[in-house]
Amino acid sequence: MSTFQENLQKYAELAVKVGVNIQKGQTLVINTSIESAEFVRLVVKEAYQIGAKNVVVNWGDDVVTRTKYELAPDEAFTEYPEWRAKETIALAEEGAAFMSVVSSSPDLLKGIASERISNFQKASGTALSQFRKYVQSDKVSWTVIAVPSKAWANLVFPDAPEDTRIELLWDAIFKAIRVDRDNPIQAWKEHDKTLHTKVDYLNEKAYQKLHYTAPGTDLTIELPKGHLWCGAGSINEKGFEFMANMPTEEVFTVPHKTGVNGTVSSTKPLSYGGNIINNFSVTFKDGRIVEVKAEEGEEILRQLVETDEGSHYLGEVALVPHRSPISQSNILYYNTLFDENASNHLAIGSAYAFCIEGGKKMSSEELAEKGLNDSITHVDFMIGSDKMNIDGITADGTVEAVFRNGDWAF
Amino acid sequence: MSTFQENLQKYAELAVKVGVNIQKGQTLVINTSIESAEFVRLVVKEAYQIGAKNVVVNWGDDVVTRTKYELAPDEAFTEYPEWRAKETIALAEEGAAFMSVVSSSPDLLKGIASERISNFQKASGTALSQFRKYVQSDKVSWTVIAVPSKAWANLVFPDAPEDTRIELLWDAIFKAIRVDRDNPIQAWKEHDKTLHTKVDYLNEKAYQKLHYTAPGTDLTIELPKGHLWCGAGSINEKGFEFMANMPTEEVFTVPHKTGVNGTVSSTKPLSYGGNIINNFSVTFKDGRIVEVKAEEGEEILRQLVETDEGSHYLGEVALVPHRSPISQSNILYYNTLFDENASNHLAIGSAYAFCIEGGKKMSSEELAEKGLNDSITHVDFMIGSDKMNIDGITADGTVEAVFRNGDWAF
Repeated sequence: MSTFQENLQKYAELAVKVGVNIQKGQTLVINTSIESAEFVRLVVKEAYQIGAKNVVVNWGDDVVTRTKYELAPDEAFTEYPEWRAKETIALAEEGAAFMSVVSSSPDLLKGIASERISNFQKASGTALSQFRKYVQSDKVSWTVIAVPSKAWANLVFPDAPEDTRIELLWDAIFKAIRVDRDNPIQAWKEHDKTLHTKVDYLNEKAYQKLHYTAPGTDLTIELPKGHLWCGAGSINEKGFEFMANMPTEEVFTVPHKTGVNGTVSSTKPLSYGGNIINNFSVTFKDGRIVEVKAEEGEEILRQLVETDEGSHYLGEVALVPHRSPISQSNILYYNTLFDENASNHLAIGSAYAFCIEGGKKMSSEELAEKGLNDSITHVDFMIGSDKMNIDGITADGTVEAVFRNGDWAF
Repeated sequence: MSTFQENLQKYAELAVKVGVNIQKGQTLVINTSIESAEFVRLVVKEAYQIGAKNVVVNWGDDVVTRTKYELAPDEAFTEYPEWRAKETIALAEEGAAFMSVVSSSPDLLKGIASERISNFQKASGTALSQFRKYVQSDKVSWTVIAVPSKAWANLVFPDAPEDTRIELLWDAIFKAIRVDRDNPIQAWKEHDKTLHTKVDYLNEKAYQKLHYTAPGTDLTIELPKGHLWCGAGSINEKGFEFMANMPTEEVFTVPHKTGVNGTVSSTKPLSYGGNIINNFSVTFKDGRIVEVKAEEGEEILRQLVETDEGSHYLGEVALVPHRSPISQSNILYYNTLFDENASNHLAIGSAYAFCIEGGKKMSSEELAEKGLNDSITHVDFMIGSDKMNIDGITADGTVEAVFRNGDWAF
């Protein structure tokens, strides 16, 4: 077996054992692209070997997707297949685990009319609304992982010889998800512990507000009473651990919906709806987005904010040191799964119910009362840099350093 | 564009325009394998260019399927995803067209316990029972076509150098579906006419019985009153033509469920449920299968007959001259779509409602009263050879030659 084949096999094992942590008799749903077949086949085999009852693979194809966006009539984008949504929800209710294996080109839909993209985002967001609630309250085990595609590798390594780009991206991913370690499963256990020391510190502090400053950024974020910092491993309804993102270097919590004020500037491009949004800033007043500007992709950013009422507010606050291993690689992935783990970030849209005390069992109304935002969308964007300072402000008004020059201050 | 690319494009056009004959605003459902992606992408593009509203591609993967059959627990094979079945039925009711692009290895499931295969055939047959009725009464437009896969090409051309096998199979398929003609669409129109002269002759004769003789075969098949011979083009509920199989060289009708007596021997191997059944014979008494024998795959043949009550009876009688172009190619495809069009054949299982006068609008009970068989399965098997004679027996007892030495006698 070549080193590559060995790494691929170790990655598949990690995805199944640490990512979704499949249990005997459970169903695994994999959403992926046909270009990821080699890897997905290993995941399927691994899942059955551990005792999965069934593995449902929902294959997509970027070429078919792009063809549809180019040639289908407008009305095709206002519908999401009803039965697919029902199937997804039913499988979640039966206790299935969900794995997304991401490989799409970050600018797959470049040049497509932005209404088509936003209409489909709205249609799918609405159809899958119940499923999103299950995910955002950790009812089900879920994980997002990535494997290279040609188009994605071309974007990340444009200056490398063409036939080496995929391999370079594989190497970067293997490093980022710790497949290069002797015992990756053990490495993830240790990583989980490390992130939890930060989580514990922040939860003890229970800051009332965070104040961000950096070039183009002066932002205050109120944190709701009872907010919980989370990081790395999660625990599903039945008590089983899972890793929602691989890689993950963040600790995160929820902002108070109406407690965000000031302006924040992006520090990395954001791939959203198959388009790249770059060099943008967002201004908030009492939580609501009142202005957006972007050097690239402003229209698609505007459409994102206009998705629904909740997409005018934030749903996540995440801290990632500028010295995180992914950040140190100096690779710009144009893929949020990686770029968000190299940078402090925020998310526009819905908030995670598990980030507030007792939230997993709260109704939508109770969550709203606590200050948590709801939306059919949830999109992370990167704001961290080595010039970012963050202060934590406690209930009694004490100001403490949380981040200095992009890194943890404690 | 290379000749191969040109042929692929012409094939995609044929599949969309002649196969399912897509109409503006219609949805096309494609069931296929990820190995067929290059061809399927052209079909998707062609369908949107003609005006399809949506193209739903249901991708499968032979490796994932085989892995499931090898490793999943027994209970995984007794279920068919409820929502997938509902989606298929709903799409048919909304007027979608259905295309199967077949490429699976004919012996994909060799060595798998036959109960797993038959259980899944039963589960899917039951779940899709309503959909099968729509197909078998020509409510929807549907077509079955094929593209090579490596494993399939290996089986068909085992003696050719390995790197030429796929190309050889492509060439054979391009010929069989008339893509090598100057104007394939026109060629299909002419072919349709030719087959209809046979259909018209047989419908005028309205034979009461057919009597088959060949080595190992002495079989009498009663044809129900009002039976209709069909061939080549079909017409859906809305009046649009389509071609259910490409290639197609057969004319066919329904047998009377309880009017089949004697023994028939196979002349080509049959790939069923991912296994090959070879050198087999089937004996009928008053329509019911009372004995089966097979040199290879007898257990899987027995499981097929035991699928349900209807799988103990015949549902189709089809005539194909031994001199058909596909037969003349002398290629054994191990794939019913091709082999059935090189040979007289019969089908175990359900009968086509459109093969009886007024049948498209009859209830299941009315169809049964006319002598048409019903089952959750429908499996063709090949019985033709250059040694086969068939007599037609009219209502007044006159015996006329229909086939002599494997070819049309009129």
